[in-house]
Amino acid sequence: MTNHLSYFECHYQPGCFWVLSAEIDVAVQLLLKLKTDYKHLTGQDYKAGCPPPENVVNQDNGAATDGIDEEDNVDPWNVSTSNAKGVDYDKLIVRFGSSKIETELVDRIEKVTGQKPHRFLRRGIFFSHRDMHQVLDAYEKNKSFYLYTGRGPSSEAMHVGHLIPFIFTKWLQDVFDIPLVIQLTDDEKYLWKDLAIEECHRFAVENAKDIIACGFDVNKTFIFSDFDYMGSSPEFYRNVVKIQKHVTYNQVKGIFGFTDSDCIGKISFPAIQAAPSFSNSFPQIFGGRKDVQCLIPCAIDQDPYFRMTRDVAPRIGYPKPALLHSSFFPALQGAQTKMSASDANSSIFLTDTPKQIKNKINKHAFSGGKDTIEEHRKFGGNPDVDVSFMYLTFFLDDDEQLEKIKQDYSSGALLTGELKKILIETLQPMIAQHQERRKQVTEETVKQFMTPRPLNFKL
Amino acid sequence: MTNHLSYFECHYQPGCFWVLSAEIDVAVQLLLKLKTDYKHLTGQDYKAGCPPPENVVNQDNGAATDGIDEEDNVDPWNVSTSNAKGVDYDKLIVRFGSSKIETELVDRIEKVTGQKPHRFLRRGIFFSHRDMHQVLDAYEKNKSFYLYTGRGPSSEAMHVGHLIPFIFTKWLQDVFDIPLVIQLTDDEKYLWKDLAIEECHRFAVENAKDIIACGFDVNKTFIFSDFDYMGSSPEFYRNVVKIQKHVTYNQVKGIFGFTDSDCIGKISFPAIQAAPSFSNSFPQIFGGRKDVQCLIPCAIDQDPYFRMTRDVAPRIGYPKPALLHSSFFPALQGAQTKMSASDANSSIFLTDTPKQIKNKINKHAFSGGKDTIEEHRKFGGNPDVDVSFMYLTFFLDDDEQLEKIKQDYSSGALLTGELKKILIETLQPMIAQHQERRKQVTEETVKQFMTPRPLNFKL
Repeated sequence: MTNHLSYFECHYQPGCFWVLSAEIDVAVQLLLKLKTDYKHLTGQDYKAGCPPPENVVNQDNGAATDGIDEEDNVDPWNVSTSNAKGVDYDKLIVRFGSSKIETELVDRIEKVTGQKPHRFLRRGIFFSHRDMHQVLDAYEKNKSFYLYTGRGPSSEAMHVGHLIPFIFTKWLQDVFDIPLVIQLTDDEKYLWKDLAIEECHRFAVENAKDIIACGFDVNKTFIFSDFDYMGSSPEFYRNVVKIQKHVTYNQVKGIFGFTDSDCIGKISFPAIQAAPSFSNSFPQIFGGRKDVQCLIPCAIDQDPYFRMTRDVAPRIGYPKPALLHSSFFPALQGAQTKMSASDANSSIFLTDTPKQIKNKINKHAFSGGKDTIEEHRKFGGNPDVDVSFMYLTFFLDDDEQLEKIKQDYSSGALLTGELKKILIETLQPMIAQHQERRKQVTEETVKQFMTPRPLNFKL
Repeated sequence: MTNHLSYFECHYQPGCFWVLSAEIDVAVQLLLKLKTDYKHLTGQDYKAGCPPPENVVNQDNGAATDGIDEEDNVDPWNVSTSNAKGVDYDKLIVRFGSSKIETELVDRIEKVTGQKPHRFLRRGIFFSHRDMHQVLDAYEKNKSFYLYTGRGPSSEAMHVGHLIPFIFTKWLQDVFDIPLVIQLTDDEKYLWKDLAIEECHRFAVENAKDIIACGFDVNKTFIFSDFDYMGSSPEFYRNVVKIQKHVTYNQVKGIFGFTDSDCIGKISFPAIQAAPSFSNSFPQIFGGRKDVQCLIPCAIDQDPYFRMTRDVAPRIGYPKPALLHSSFFPALQGAQTKMSASDANSSIFLTDTPKQIKNKINKHAFSGGKDTIEEHRKFGGNPDVDVSFMYLTFFLDDDEQLEKIKQDYSSGALLTGELKKILIETLQPMIAQHQERRKQVTEETVKQFMTPRPLNFKL
């Protein structure tokens, strides 16, 4: 949707000629633009009442870029880039208006918590933030905060990429010793996918098991399905409606790219992902306090929800949530896209056997190596586009070892097969341990985590 | 919103020139219309970049009809007509596509229930329906149904007009011996009005007391505030989302006239008023059954919600709700508009004293009588536009007495003052009795009615 149309929609009131005068100008501009577009598409000038010739090929091949708009595409439902190194995160920070996580901030987190920063911070995997300094300022003055993250349960199968926000959130919970709420947006998945409510809810419960297996403290963690929690918390619903009152269709259209043929469930959903950012959505945890600051660790594609949330917050008397943004976990085939839960070969799944892990990496992990061993030894490989190396930056904790691998691969001392072997030997035990922990998650444990209840913490 | 704008909103996709070609035509038409409107408003031709003269008076006085569009304006938020007799209900039936309640249907209700039809049926106050014959067919085969009605609690003060659906629903509950759910849309009022959530919720509880005072059977009646019930019924929320998935923004724009600058709460609200039409929204009452037919008695201005509901129902596997539509209760000043809870002199409030009732009717009730007693005696009064007479058709149960009043007033035998006296003497005890019954409604009683629980009935 283009803005001149929104403009029409907002302001047209018969009887107000000031607006009318502005509207005529806009209509004229619209008309000129439409005529230009028409000529561009058909190669002919527009004549009223005369349809265009049939079978005219769209000269743009669908892409409206023509080199003008080479921006990466990043929103909650699509992430794509044409760059093998992945999305340009520095550009994204500028576009989204967030702040880069500089070494200074990482050092400060180390100082405040007295803990070595998580490798995701050390390596810029969490690369962008909003208001993190403010959260630390308050924390230093003994004013605590809570964590909020989530997942859209679109299938039973989670892959290693899905663990990133949870691994990091678990670390944050541990080093700051604070409560955490985890939203499973089963309602969102029902609205966006061709799935039944019962399926989405079942996926939520299954995903909760994988999340719990990351090691969260049951005394400090509340996991909820939207379908369940909305129906059991009048306070949560009140916040949802409060947000829905303060966001217009024009705004969600601008932020999320909704169109008029989208269902009204999608259009109002952003308020449901926003509501957990406010502490009084959880009276069982915060006893009705609405001023507890929220920190949201999430992948950068979720930022649109929280830009909206931060815009609304002061208008409804709540603090803005702070954010920590992660980059995307690359697909085995390369960093151009996010992993997909629907393509078994695009990812390492949490249910994969050691053999499957080995085969997938050997077969599908995009290599930055050279075509022959001779060339590789001579010119070295490119770790920046090598998916096995990228995965190691996520999962190999030893900085020195990682650095050595990088140098050896770049110099050609380390072959692609050898690099893949290191990754396989890193992931196999990690996944096996996860599977072991998940097995120990009983229905009773899930119920415990998912029951609205007080948590054990000091604010 | 005018339709050409919706058209733009729906279909504009760069790259599709068939649409583009149609859009240019639409844009040209829009431009011509805007220019015409401009000239009409300012008396000048439009020139780009040249603002209109200041202080030009809107020659239409706000009404954009010019005799072209003389339709009554009827939607959930506005009802207006230029006709002193009120809205043209026959036209409305055609426009809304509902069916007229013919004598045959009234006779059938009498036959099925073995009870004399309520005066609202006998006198065409409930004048339109959807699928009522189908409800009776099933009822005759021992397949029962449930009733659903509601109220938007926009203030503490209810007037006699607000009682119409409840008086009638109470009668239906009695003669059919069936369960009833009453929705108080405090969330809607919060979204539409400049009110706090707490106020809207308090109005809901206060209004519930007046509703209970109508004499509903606590064993067969569940009254709920949306803010409370949404947060205590996962099944209700599931149905809301199910409906929201199957209705697009385009549809609610068409049905309710929403614009892009409306908040997303308004846009998604219709699903919340729709959900109680489906029996599995109340598992505590219907034990998860989704096939119990719903009958909704309501004023005709609520029909847009249920047209939408009936459109969605078969697509999500639920029966369509049936409807009984009432006409509007006129303001004291005349039948051109609905009563307004915000203008104390437009209505008889349920809290009015006998003296206030007397004064309001004597001072404000629009009269169909002649200017002088002599003229009135000679030519007679006009009961069709006389508000006191209209009110008697609502509240005086004796058909013969009402007919005699009509004749005497038409002939001039009955003077306006005498007619008003009859109305005063009808309303004073009615309101006094209501106040007495309301006084007996304790907080405990309200809590009983508003607690989700099983009801006592046989389906």
